[in-house]
Amino acid sequence: MSFLELATRRQSTRAYLDKPVPRDVIDRCIEAARLAPSACNSQPWSFVVADSGPVRTQLVDAAFSGVYSMCAFAKAAPVIIVATRDRSTYTAKLGAFFRGSEFNLIDIGIACEHLVLQAEEEGLGTCWLGWFNEAGVRRMLGLPRRTKIDVMITMGYPADPALRPKTRRSLDEVRKYA
Amino acid sequence: MSFLELATRRQSTRAYLDKPVPRDVIDRCIEAARLAPSACNSQPWSFVVADSGPVRTQLVDAAFSGVYSMCAFAKAAPVIIVATRDRSTYTAKLGAFFRGSEFNLIDIGIACEHLVLQAEEEGLGTCWLGWFNEAGVRRMLGLPRRTKIDVMITMGYPADPALRPKTRRSLDEVRKYA
Repeated sequence: MSFLELATRRQSTRAYLDKPVPRDVIDRCIEAARLAPSACNSQPWSFVVADSGPVRTQLVDAAFSGVYSMCAFAKAAPVIIVATRDRSTYTAKLGAFFRGSEFNLIDIGIACEHLVLQAEEEGLGTCWLGWFNEAGVRRMLGLPRRTKIDVMITMGYPADPALRPKTRRSLDEVRKYA
Repeated sequence: MSFLELATRRQSTRAYLDKPVPRDVIDRCIEAARLAPSACNSQPWSFVVADSGPVRTQLVDAAFSGVYSMCAFAKAAPVIIVATRDRSTYTAKLGAFFRGSEFNLIDIGIACEHLVLQAEEEGLGTCWLGWFNEAGVRRMLGLPRRTKIDVMITMGYPADPALRPKTRRSLDEVRKYA
């Protein structure tokens, strides 16, 4: 599959088959994330994977209850991946101070998209989530307060793999030759 | 090429052949970026491409002089891509306010990595750059002050395409099953 085809096929998947995802498949997705580039190779990411039983249930309950229940579809996803970010890296501090850009947030974007694209290649569906109870997730997983959780990703075999059309600005709108 | 192979082959390329990159190839790289997902589909990105003559020279002089000359290798890159970010999107403001995460920085990471991966598939080398004179670039391109430029990307045919080993944390260090 060409990269453009892979990028075209990737779409947010919110309904999943009730079918477990083998751990070697999950690991290949994390492997793709691990290979991602980052500012000064700081690799500010770690991934906590919940794929079974009570832990998954406790996690989704902590994440998607109350005002966060608009993402309740995630409660039925076979795999939940929590992407954590280490804010203490030197690069991040320098980038924010001198350039006004938190480079390690860009790095989280790159690494998680590698994960999502590898998942697509494996025939899995994924969905990026930014709206969840971060403090609740941190507490449930026993993570220290300095650990930032910007995004979570749901994963599983899609209930409906049909490709939906994408709504995007046109090439001429996003690209200009100087 | 499998996605894992593509992710493995991508590396920072700082030396380029003196060979122009056809615009249809550049456009396919931007096309890959255009297809990227973003928070609430806000698509906060635009790309300014400098690939020839005096404009490219003026741009690299504005970007990589003085304290920014540690990235002077970029002056010899056949193509310079300036990724601009629209900070005024609703999503970005809500994300920063309610969740403490500037989601559109993550989006810039995703879109630019799509661009970089498509370039890799086209046989091009790229390098992410975060250290440049942002105000100078903005002035030279006549961009408004609200436009944020977090990163620039150099692109061209690599002078030495040999794959260097990657230094990364191990899978067991970055992934934990809850």
